[in-house]
Formats: sequence, C-alpha cells, structure tokens
Amino acid sequence: MNTTLRLHYAPDNASLCVRLALEELGLPYETALVDRLAKAQRSAPYLALNPNGLIPVLETPQGPIFETGAILMWLADTHGALMPGTEDPNRAHAVQWMFWLSNTLHTTQRMLFYPDQFTDGDVSELSAPTRARLIQKLDVLSAATTADWLDSPVASAHGCYLGPLLRWCTLYGGGHEWFDLARWPRLMDFAGRAEQRPAAQRAALAEGLGLTPFSAPSPCNPPEGSAL
Amino acid sequence: MNTTLRLHYAPDNASLCVRLALEELGLPYETALVDRLAKAQRSAPYLALNPNGLIPVLETPQGPIFETGAILMWLADTHGALMPGTEDPNRAHAVQWMFWLSNTLHTTQRMLFYPDQFTDGDVSELSAPTRARLIQKLDVLSAATTADWLDSPVASAHGCYLGPLLRWCTLYGGGHEWFDLARWPRLMDFAGRAEQRPAAQRAALAEGLGLTPFSAPSPCNPPEGSAL
Repeated sequence: MNTTLRLHYAPDNASLCVRLALEELGLPYETALVDRLAKAQRSAPYLALNPNGLIPVLETPQGPIFETGAILMWLADTHGALMPGTEDPNRAHAVQWMFWLSNTLHTTQRMLFYPDQFTDGDVSELSAPTRARLIQKLDVLSAATTADWLDSPVASAHGCYLGPLLRWCTLYGGGHEWFDLARWPRLMDFAGRAEQRPAAQRAALAEGLGLTPFSAPSPCNPPEGSAL
Repeated sequence: MNTTLRLHYAPDNASLCVRLALEELGLPYETALVDRLAKAQRSAPYLALNPNGLIPVLETPQGPIFETGAILMWLADTHGALMPGTEDPNRAHAVQWMFWLSNTLHTTQRMLFYPDQFTDGDVSELSAPTRARLIQKLDVLSAATTADWLDSPVASAHGCYLGPLLRWCTLYGGGHEWFDLARWPRLMDFAGRAEQRPAAQRAALAEGLGLTPFSAPSPCNPPEGSAL
C-alpha cells in the first residue's frame, strides 16, 4: 500500500481542486501526469485506479480514491480542516453544498464541455439549456444563506472546488459570452479572495494558470501535459 | 428551530432514500407531502427550504438540508451508523461511492427521466446515449472491488440510495426493455436482500411500492400524493 499521497492529474482538470486542497493543508504529495492527448485516462492502468476513466485519482494509504468531492471531503475530515467536523452544527450544510457542487454545478458543466457524450443529436441543442441552467444554479449559490464558506477568509474544501468551476465557465465549452462573473458580486468577491491565497498561487504556477485564475482566467499554459 | 426530523417527500421520489435511512436508524420523523401534481416543489414556501426546487428536504435541528447524498451522509455520521466513521480506514471508499451514486448514477437517471430539462432538441436523441451510460455505470459498480456495502447484510447509506435507483430504472424514463437487472447478478442479490429488510418493507408500505420494490418493481400506488 502506498504511503505517499499521489495525485493523478492533468492541468486545469478536476484534479486542480484536489491540488488546491493539498496545498491548503500543506501536505507533501507527488503528482503523476495523465496524458490526455494519448487518452491515458482510458488506459488499462488508469482504469484500474478509476474504472470511470475520469481525472483525478488520489492514491492514499487507504488505496486510490476517485470522485473530486469525495477526495476533498476525505482530506478535510482526516486532517480536521477545510470543513466543519461531524460534531459541528454547521456540518449539515457543509455536506449539502459539497454534494451540490459535485452533482449540480460540476455535472452540469460537464454537459457543456463534453456534449457529444450526452446526445446522439446536434450538440448545440444541449448548449443553450445547459448554459441557462448553469446561470440559474449560480444564482442559487449566490443567494445561499447557508454557505458561510463563500464569504469566509478561511480556506475550505468548498472553495477549493468552486474556484476552478468558476474558472472553467470562461475557458471551456465553446464561447464565454454567456458567462459574466460580474453578475454575481458575491461570487466575484469569492474568486478574487480565493486566487490570492498562497496555496492557490502555488497551484496556479504548477499548472500554468496565470495570476488571476478564478476571477479573470486566461487559457492554461502548463509546464507539462494538456488540459484537453 | 425545529427539533423534530421532518421529511418533505413525494412517493417514490428521491425522498425514498432518506425515508429508508430514517427507518434503518429507527428515528422518529414526520413527513410532509410535496404535491407534485400542483408543482408544490416550485412554490415559494418550498423554494425557501430548497432553492433548487427538488425533493427531498429534511428539516433538522440544524435547519433544512437538501441533497439526498448529503442528508444520508449527515444522518449516518450524526448517528454513528450506516457508514464507516471518519477515523475508519474504509471511510475513503465509502465517501467515494456516496458521491458516485449522487453525481454519476442519480444524475444520469435524471437525464433519462426529465430529458426536456436538458435539451432544446428531440428528447429521443438523449435517451439512447443516456441508457447506454447507465448500463456502463452499473457495469462499473457491479465490478467494484471497494464497495463492500454492496454485498453486506448490514444496512448502509449506500444501500438506502442504490435500492431506489435500481427500482427507478424499470419504472421511469419511458420503457424499460433496455434495463434487465439480471445482467448484474451482484446487483440483483443486493436488491433482493435490501427489499427484505424490515425498514425497506415499512418504507414500501408507506409509499405504496409493493413487496419487491427493488428486484421486481411495480408502479407505485401511494396512499397520498403522486410520484410524477
């Protein structure tokens, strides 16, 4: 069993959320590039780590873990940071928003970025309703009364997840005229705060994301590998 | 703040997963019917509980919680049952599969059941790839080496989630000829075991789901409310 944390990643992929959490926790970790140009995420060795063929995987002393949200929650809970503990009265809403980020915001984005995986028809027929749903969901988040992490100066598992999700709205899925972070001042404030954290700057440097990766993203220019 | 657990439900909706967990834990709870025929899940009072307009919500001493997976995990963790605790080495994979059930299996099912929410085009162009993905995902689950809960005689949060998900494949989304649980003997065994649990039988009675709700489902015939 591996005793070192080893993150299987591709630049600017969902592995970025996990890298942010590892950096926030100050944990030593190794990275293993998943070569997307060679579709390495569909190779037999990678499928043995994650049979879903998705990035990331984190190898841990408990074996490889997949699912971005699960890795973030497991890191938070095993290190007593980034999330209220199970005894904390704020736990319920913290878990709620972790699931929401995963199954609502992240999953909807995937439909925008990879529409051909979801339809046999014209992918453009998926784009408009998907974009409308993303905007509606960000409206919900922006108005949330139970998401204290959104306004907090303290690092959170949620923040490690949301920063990249906001970034990707601008960069992927064909055109970004539909997306204007300024629509949500609360989310804009979050993005500006989150990207100034030293952990975020280290992650951005490692993956070539520039100086304002969440509030005003530019395409990634990674030292190794490919985002797509 | 409400001190009683109060489940906002509609029969055979995702609230069923939460009802199963409440029954497994032996907790006292109230139910509040969400009248789907009147689109009550989109009413202002309901949106104040869950701004996503989705069922279920569980009202708790910590306020209302939405997200099926989050409610299940919160119930498990606050009662020290249905899931390995945060100190348990099996925790990592338990959390992984909770997220997978939520953002992969459940979310994909929603595309099959409510395709008009996802496309401006012909909904039938979504159905075939969605069904193929559901089968592929159940292949992944059935082959999983880290999902001990699947074969366990002990109740789990995962089991409370998966039983209904298997049921719904047969009943909703227009036609079930694509779905044959016998393809996955391991899942069939799970379904047969899960539906015989006293907690499952109580939940099935409360929502009119018949005697074999997971392994050989028949349409629900609830004492109140409507599934669709």
